[in-house]
Amino acid sequence: MMHRPPIKFCKQCGTAVEYRIPDDGDTKVRAVCPSCDTIHYENPLTVVGTVPSWGDRVLLCKRNIEPRFGLWTLPAGFMELNETTTEGAARETVEEAGAQFEMQDLFSLVNVSRVGQVHLFYRAKLTSDQFDPGVETIEARLFLESEIPWEEIAFHTTRVTLECFFADRRKGGFSLHHLDV
Amino acid sequence: MMHRPPIKFCKQCGTAVEYRIPDDGDTKVRAVCPSCDTIHYENPLTVVGTVPSWGDRVLLCKRNIEPRFGLWTLPAGFMELNETTTEGAARETVEEAGAQFEMQDLFSLVNVSRVGQVHLFYRAKLTSDQFDPGVETIEARLFLESEIPWEEIAFHTTRVTLECFFADRRKGGFSLHHLDV
Repeated sequence: MMHRPPIKFCKQCGTAVEYRIPDDGDTKVRAVCPSCDTIHYENPLTVVGTVPSWGDRVLLCKRNIEPRFGLWTLPAGFMELNETTTEGAARETVEEAGAQFEMQDLFSLVNVSRVGQVHLFYRAKLTSDQFDPGVETIEARLFLESEIPWEEIAFHTTRVTLECFFADRRKGGFSLHHLDV
Repeated sequence: MMHRPPIKFCKQCGTAVEYRIPDDGDTKVRAVCPSCDTIHYENPLTVVGTVPSWGDRVLLCKRNIEPRFGLWTLPAGFMELNETTTEGAARETVEEAGAQFEMQDLFSLVNVSRVGQVHLFYRAKLTSDQFDPGVETIEARLFLESEIPWEEIAFHTTRVTLECFFADRRKGGFSLHHLDV
């Protein structure tokens, strides 16, 4: 997903930063500006998306962008400022699939601490089986569980969320899944 | 919580940034470096914390830091890189209260989109009523619902999470609360 090279210069004054523990009682090494004292915090990113369903089928998008070009994913992307998690998940579903849907409950929270990300997937009930995917998507298509291209799924968070979704569907009820991958 | 002044200089090369829509198909204005083309994304921050309980009592911490110095809060703070949401919530509970506890389920997800934050609170079952608060806390104390200092609660996310917690306790069962404030 997003590549994060180390911070080299102060975002407030342009001076080369130092890496050290700040003097304010902090316990972690941060990029600190020796000129204006700005501390550059780096924190995990939130990825928000949906599991859009139409009867027994789930909507997947074939990626038209790197990474994982040509592989299938649930609609999802980085949460932006000035939106809620639900609004972000809905925005990504419109952008990547051009889908029409009603948002439902939070379905999975997946920690990917290795890359500093938290992924949140909401269930979404499609209100049409017609899609209008944006530039990031080659194709948006509905899949029965038996049709899911498991060998061509782009991200592990999509894979585990789909596995939980179909397992819950077989059990007849959906609950929140809290996972670390 | 964390103040976010606009980015002025490129974190990779120190050149003054421009604010414009990047040329990569993006639709939002970002801080873009005219020299090395680095795009500086700014995304919401995740705050992680706990609702620690001991029988009918809940643990609150009196803040020894700004903002909201001297007011009461649930133990919580910004999630760091290289930890899961649960690990971050546990870390903050140790740092701010010096509490001993068992982590339980996710209890509230509170969007604070006005300031670009998502707050996640987990229930935690205290295994001792002795605390050893860190430098950020004046006092860590257990409160019955009738004793909660509602007029001296530091943050709205703490207030709504406490309200949901005591309402669920009266009903006899806890579920996930998904809120926008």
